[in-house]
Amino acid sequence: MGGDRAPGEIVAGARQAAEQGNIAVVLVGRPGEMGDTGGLPVIEAGEVIGMGDDPGQGVRRKKDSSLVRAAEAVRDGKALAMVSAGNTGATMASALLRMGRLPGVIRPAIATPIPDLNRAWPTVMLDAGANAECTPQMLLQFAEMGAAFTRNRYGVERPRVALLSIGEEKSKGTPLVKETHAMLASGAGGPGLEFVGNVEGRDFFEGLADVIVTDGFTGNVALKTLEGSLRFLIGALTEIFARPEVREIADALSPHLLPLATALDPESTGGAMLLGVNGVCVISHGSSSSVAIVNAITVAHDLAVAGLVADVAASVRQGPAE
Amino acid sequence: MGGDRAPGEIVAGARQAAEQGNIAVVLVGRPGEMGDTGGLPVIEAGEVIGMGDDPGQGVRRKKDSSLVRAAEAVRDGKALAMVSAGNTGATMASALLRMGRLPGVIRPAIATPIPDLNRAWPTVMLDAGANAECTPQMLLQFAEMGAAFTRNRYGVERPRVALLSIGEEKSKGTPLVKETHAMLASGAGGPGLEFVGNVEGRDFFEGLADVIVTDGFTGNVALKTLEGSLRFLIGALTEIFARPEVREIADALSPHLLPLATALDPESTGGAMLLGVNGVCVISHGSSSSVAIVNAITVAHDLAVAGLVADVAASVRQGPAE
Repeated sequence: MGGDRAPGEIVAGARQAAEQGNIAVVLVGRPGEMGDTGGLPVIEAGEVIGMGDDPGQGVRRKKDSSLVRAAEAVRDGKALAMVSAGNTGATMASALLRMGRLPGVIRPAIATPIPDLNRAWPTVMLDAGANAECTPQMLLQFAEMGAAFTRNRYGVERPRVALLSIGEEKSKGTPLVKETHAMLASGAGGPGLEFVGNVEGRDFFEGLADVIVTDGFTGNVALKTLEGSLRFLIGALTEIFARPEVREIADALSPHLLPLATALDPESTGGAMLLGVNGVCVISHGSSSSVAIVNAITVAHDLAVAGLVADVAASVRQGPAE
Repeated sequence: MGGDRAPGEIVAGARQAAEQGNIAVVLVGRPGEMGDTGGLPVIEAGEVIGMGDDPGQGVRRKKDSSLVRAAEAVRDGKALAMVSAGNTGATMASALLRMGRLPGVIRPAIATPIPDLNRAWPTVMLDAGANAECTPQMLLQFAEMGAAFTRNRYGVERPRVALLSIGEEKSKGTPLVKETHAMLASGAGGPGLEFVGNVEGRDFFEGLADVIVTDGFTGNVALKTLEGSLRFLIGALTEIFARPEVREIADALSPHLLPLATALDPESTGGAMLLGVNGVCVISHGSSSSVAIVNAITVAHDLAVAGLVADVAASVRQGPAE
């Protein structure tokens, strides 16, 4: 029921994933409002947490909301994973409160893939906004969980993990960054990852690391700055290309630009992952179309089948907390 | 003597600013290494702080460096302003230690203009990296100094000041952001600015504010992410345009793209400003060409003549500290 284009595009994407992807999709929501569900099973949920609702209040008060019911379905083994394009904070809160944290995890984090044109897998940044305030111990776990995700999802055996800072030197940054740097440099992240030091904001597309770790405030600002900058430039170019005297040239150019546009389209990645909860939870853009939902459902399915949650749990248990 | 292309491009830019802009430029550095200075006066400085040198150590140990001597020239009234494309940290440290802070200023901040295609003036973001750790009182002063700069430089009578956060609501962000929000919302920034609340990373090009305030860690990450994202996309497009089968189409397009490229070229803005020190200090990109140096010298000259330092000093004295 959540998302700017729900339930129409969500249901359409779910049907497509079921029919073409042969994935057993369960819908959660108000049966009377979903339109033609194409025979997909439905878990009824009478309430909806709106995009602008306070996440904590929404989850506490609307216990019969589609988000809470979806998280309960995963908890109760009725579903392998949940996907939502709804209120991001409420999606996180539902997953956290109903699925619960994995043993040893201090706080779950949002991992977001950033496309890399020069290789077959993206750069994963976390935390993209779940935790505005972090401790070095939390960032250390983000490194472990991000590496486990990258290994599970993209087959990168020993992911290179970097810390987002304002200079390459270990002396650069806040006390949080410097302490985390010292822990990772001393091998606290375990043998499953290779710590490659600090990277800067300009390095997101440089392929210097497979995983970039930061607190949820910096990560959210950086991700939105990145998306906003690309959108701004693409918008400015689109405006130029639409001018009458340019349109013909632009038309001749468009087949050459299409692969780049596709590679950068956030809809093609399927969304962000909430790591550290006891279940698979994919958070899609609020603006998700049916195409984005198909991709998100496919990613969620693949992660569940590939045992992501067990891998994330094992990565954290290997940490120094044990 | 500082900058990736120094002293050649620096001296060339200085000569051009003097000859075409009719600005009285003084060079600071090693006379024997500057090439033809075209008769410009030279303040001799025997040492050079390298781009990779530790800023604090460099300034303390190399008292006869061009950066330290340039800051001393401003302090001693031998120059109205200093411009450097050298080591950013050392430029800040030289200005801070030799010119000194303005009365009441807790810490100087780096203000960086971000182009806005829809209006005649840019959005100014500060702090872009001088202070990794900040207090709400510091951010309040950044708001005041940024507003004073925007008024002085761009003639915006009552600049709209926003706080960089991870959501529009005042409840979003770190304790630092929330406390600063409360201070600015209660009018602590004085009558010279209009506080418009929080903006997010995606809003840098949206024209929602004239000044965006943040701590130096977040600001540096955001600015480098913004620059890196634009550079990445421009690089990907340039690669496509250079393909043999595309080159002809791209050539027809280039006159239409030129104004956009010019508007986004960091060389055209002249660089960043260090606000809060007792003198004008313009910090140019390390990669500055002679064109960037001409613009930086012109900006520095104009700011000095327009009384920027007095305006910044007055803006801070209006604050609640008095």
